[in-house]
Amino acid sequence: MLTRIDHVGIAVPSLSEAIPHYEEAFNLKCVHQETNERQGVREAMLLVHAGETGGSYVQLLEPLREDTPVGKFLAKRGPGIHHIAYGVDNIDAALASLTVAGFELINKTPVHGTSNSRIAFIHPRALGGVLTELVEAAAGH
Amino acid sequence: MLTRIDHVGIAVPSLSEAIPHYEEAFNLKCVHQETNERQGVREAMLLVHAGETGGSYVQLLEPLREDTPVGKFLAKRGPGIHHIAYGVDNIDAALASLTVAGFELINKTPVHGTSNSRIAFIHPRALGGVLTELVEAAAGH
Repeated sequence: MLTRIDHVGIAVPSLSEAIPHYEEAFNLKCVHQETNERQGVREAMLLVHAGETGGSYVQLLEPLREDTPVGKFLAKRGPGIHHIAYGVDNIDAALASLTVAGFELINKTPVHGTSNSRIAFIHPRALGGVLTELVEAAAGH
Repeated sequence: MLTRIDHVGIAVPSLSEAIPHYEEAFNLKCVHQETNERQGVREAMLLVHAGETGGSYVQLLEPLREDTPVGKFLAKRGPGIHHIAYGVDNIDAALASLTVAGFELINKTPVHGTSNSRIAFIHPRALGGVLTELVEAAAGH
């Protein structure tokens, strides 16, 4: 079902500080930035590895406002790892399989993700406190 | 410097419950288990993807005792993502580069990791609250 670790999402107070810090630490490159209004974040993707099943990234997440999931996470827990995302070939099939097995989903159908991917979150209650995202990359990504 | 996301380390109260739960959710397979006395954990590696630069895993971590890093993490924050680990080809060179750039290391020289890998942790203070591990896999892994 899973094709790779697509990214680790890290909550940060400021992208403009976190991006150069990560670039310097690991000689990474920020290859993409976008704002996702629905998720309430500005996100930056730093490429770790371009694998044969798709890329693996560090995703830095800056909340657009305090009353967003990442804004609340920062207020409650401080900066740190927010979620883990796995690549899948077919997100509809993956969600159907998880639903049949009784895993609680936040998104029962895919929503818009980074770089026009289709994504869905699994509830942390279903996976031992770990907010988990599935990502079906757009064609060409 | 980084060759892949090697694993995401997830703190769990019980491996015997968490392993089948993860296997069922994502059709993963637990390919390795070992006890690391120095780190105070029993760990299980579930293979996500065997890439050309090495494997990517979910690492489930059960503390051996309460007074261990993972035991304290569970007591303070509950189950969840504990750390992120990146693969490197040469951990000595990576640590030297991080030291020159002023990043605070927990392990200034590599210690024993999963499957005879050489690992080192970077202090979460140096990376916005994220406990980060570097992994140089043993030959053949």
